[in-house]
Amino acid sequence: MKVAALSGGVGGARMLRGLTALDDVELTAIVNVGDDDLIYGVHVSPDIDTVIYTLAGLEGAAGWGLADDSNAVMSVLEKFPIDTWFRIGDRDLATSLFRQARLHAGWTLSQVTTAQSAVFGLRASILPVTDEPIRTEVHVPGEGWLPFQSYFVDRQHRPPVDDIRFSGVESAAPAPGVIAAIQDADVVVIGPSNPPLSIWPILAVEGVADAVGSAKRVVGVSPLFGGRPLKGPADNVMQGLGLPAGTAGIVAAYPGLLDELVIDTMDESDVELDVGEVQLRVLPTRISDGAAATDLAAKLLGR
Amino acid sequence: MKVAALSGGVGGARMLRGLTALDDVELTAIVNVGDDDLIYGVHVSPDIDTVIYTLAGLEGAAGWGLADDSNAVMSVLEKFPIDTWFRIGDRDLATSLFRQARLHAGWTLSQVTTAQSAVFGLRASILPVTDEPIRTEVHVPGEGWLPFQSYFVDRQHRPPVDDIRFSGVESAAPAPGVIAAIQDADVVVIGPSNPPLSIWPILAVEGVADAVGSAKRVVGVSPLFGGRPLKGPADNVMQGLGLPAGTAGIVAAYPGLLDELVIDTMDESDVELDVGEVQLRVLPTRISDGAAATDLAAKLLGR
Repeated sequence: MKVAALSGGVGGARMLRGLTALDDVELTAIVNVGDDDLIYGVHVSPDIDTVIYTLAGLEGAAGWGLADDSNAVMSVLEKFPIDTWFRIGDRDLATSLFRQARLHAGWTLSQVTTAQSAVFGLRASILPVTDEPIRTEVHVPGEGWLPFQSYFVDRQHRPPVDDIRFSGVESAAPAPGVIAAIQDADVVVIGPSNPPLSIWPILAVEGVADAVGSAKRVVGVSPLFGGRPLKGPADNVMQGLGLPAGTAGIVAAYPGLLDELVIDTMDESDVELDVGEVQLRVLPTRISDGAAATDLAAKLLGR
Repeated sequence: MKVAALSGGVGGARMLRGLTALDDVELTAIVNVGDDDLIYGVHVSPDIDTVIYTLAGLEGAAGWGLADDSNAVMSVLEKFPIDTWFRIGDRDLATSLFRQARLHAGWTLSQVTTAQSAVFGLRASILPVTDEPIRTEVHVPGEGWLPFQSYFVDRQHRPPVDDIRFSGVESAAPAPGVIAAIQDADVVVIGPSNPPLSIWPILAVEGVADAVGSAKRVVGVSPLFGGRPLKGPADNVMQGLGLPAGTAGIVAAYPGLLDELVIDTMDESDVELDVGEVQLRVLPTRISDGAAATDLAAKLLGR
């Protein structure tokens, strides 16, 4: 069974881990790169790394970086006159230096990601949605546009957001294999990631939303639990952008794309909502460990 | 007393350490940047770093990098499909990430170097000879032009060299303060560095050789001991470029620039050479520790 999954970082990555644990699933993960940035002049791809580390079972407890990483570089860098709010562990930095070196040598981000997946022994295909630089920026009333990492990491996603844009997306072609993976998929899964911040930049790349709209079957997984995300600013951002609260907002974030939306048992009463053609399905969606991930993935696929 | 010193890495750096130990010396070090390169896509400045680490007393035993550095990043990076012949320790990498970040943010290499010197608590002014990228390349018969680091580190300076060039030097202006430091100096010292590989790229920058030629007094220090360098390929490179062997070759490498050349006691018999107007002076030039560095520096300046 072929599955294409759209994913941001933590929540989406955990769902992918469940999907890849199913023997007969051929998984292609299409990953957000709107969070990419040059940090200390080095190209970081936080969502790709979180997906790869999580699929390898090596993810850090905070949901990003590697577990038990050391901090020799950062502990010295912070003595220099430079902002060091973006913390990156030594082994995590090695991943980014590999990427930086290869991009500088002319590789595409796809090629880097494929090589990186092989180093971590992954079975699934991990594709950046595009090889070209797109940068998510959020608009903060009274402040203007902030780069994603400034908003999310430095400002800890506290400022209110009333608009969002994906700089560079107009000229960004989908990476090789992205459209085909969606078209060939028996099921397209939209992971439990922040819809505006993590999934919209994927859908904004030319041809992706159309391919998802024409896919055989599209199943979304809500990132909300009782109307709120486990962490991160999904509810605040959705509200700031004028989307309805809760399950209705998730449906509204993906207009015309979903055949089915899986919501958590905490939101069970939402099955009464009028969400048009979208079928709402209640499952325990909290992914506390690998077994929970596999269980959710199996149920998602109707096993 | 104002001293301007032209320096490459190890040998030159050790001499600078002696000069900066003299209370009444106001030292400006003008440092080679022809060895600079993008390593793993990050700007490294090996000679600047060696000078700064050495002046801070923190240099690695090999003559580059920091003493007792850890290798968390490299030990992971080498698992990726990438050449890792350029080894860089974790703390040394922090220096390069600071530089990379600041260059990317629009700082000049001079500005980076000044900030870096402050972090390491240096008293001397450390100036890159130019803020613009110049790249030393060596020509290997039958192979063509090699970037400096490929030749020096990857190939361990084993290939024969029959030509040398400094890519980009035609359009490289001297960094702010470089020409003035030479003009204002009571003594210009050309350190015991490899003349073609480390000092020529400094002299090749517009206006530098002219300023040195017009300086009040120019004292060179030979990097040779019995006609050979302590390490590195100075003798082989000089031979390959058609320069005479030994002391005569050092004099020939700096035509019209030297008032005096200090040679080691191992080359004492060379004082009989006909080297035109250049005064040859014999001193113990082996810099085994800080005391030897200070002693040599004092004697250099006629104390």
